Amino acid sequence: METITSTTPTTSVISSQDLLAHWQGHRGLTRRVIEAFPEKELFEFSIGGMRTFYKMVQELLMLAAPGVKQIADGTVPQLSEELYQANSKEELLSLWDAQTTAMDQDWGLIPDQKFQETILAFGAYEGSVISTVLYYIDNEIHHRGQGYVYLRALGVTPPNFYER
Amino acid sequence: METITSTTPTTSVISSQDLLAHWQGHRGLTRRVIEAFPEKELFEFSIGGMRTFYKMVQELLMLAAPGVKQIADGTVPQLSEELYQANSKEELLSLWDAQTTAMDQDWGLIPDQKFQETILAFGAYEGSVISTVLYYIDNEIHHRGQGYVYLRALGVTPPNFYER
Repeated sequence: METITSTTPTTSVISSQDLLAHWQGHRGLTRRVIEAFPEKELFEFSIGGMRTFYKMVQELLMLAAPGVKQIADGTVPQLSEELYQANSKEELLSLWDAQTTAMDQDWGLIPDQKFQETILAFGAYEGSVISTVLYYIDNEIHHRGQGYVYLRALGVTPPNFYER
Repeated sequence: METITSTTPTTSVISSQDLLAHWQGHRGLTRRVIEAFPEKELFEFSIGGMRTFYKMVQELLMLAAPGVKQIADGTVPQLSEELYQANSKEELLSLWDAQTTAMDQDWGLIPDQKFQETILAFGAYEGSVISTVLYYIDNEIHHRGQGYVYLRALGVTPPNFYER
């Protein structure tokens, strides 16, 4: 995991609330990508030996709300995608939506100065809180971009990247 | 393009210099993804009617250094990928490296308070400076993730996402 050597911030380039809004905007787009998948292919299709998009979404669910909760209250989450199981697209979207609500609530508990502190994310990855949050967001964009290729390969037009 | 409704930042969650380091870390990874492509496939391979990875990199070159220069000194760049042509992987990497240097120089000219101002990026996309910068970074992660699928489909192991 990336480590940012933190300089002492003077004027902020982004506020905590804007960063959450930015992430939730991305999560709304990822939700639409999940919705765009045909039910069967969500759980079965892949390219080049990679994971299915369902398995990538399991990783995103493992990191997002549990990752934010750890930052908010110190609860160390388990590093196991298998905790986030769905048997249908509808079930997967329900898990997604529950995390959206939980993240909004837990984020409000994080004081601004916390972002420059060091955290051992999931009991395994040391870094500043801000670099950890950016990792969770960037990892979502990375895998969602892969989902776009799966959709195109399946002949499905994905949602526009710039619409949040 | 996404618009963030800016709240007045109090304590910073990330400094301007850390944000640049974050972006340049991503750009270093994207450089290694370009390097990982076989020469011919960089310019010819695609999946599902999408662009080649070369054409995606042209878009990244159009946005990155020219986008930062506009924020730094107001120069409105042209919205044309065709300005960034390379006939080989080596030429493409040279264009990439020249932008890395230019971005470091121009970024230093951007005062912290600038990030909350409104900009008409490329004369076409209105938003706050911070949301515009995040768009450039996120767009790079998105297309690089697609490059990972191309590499896997070609039987090439891509560089680790978490190494910057």
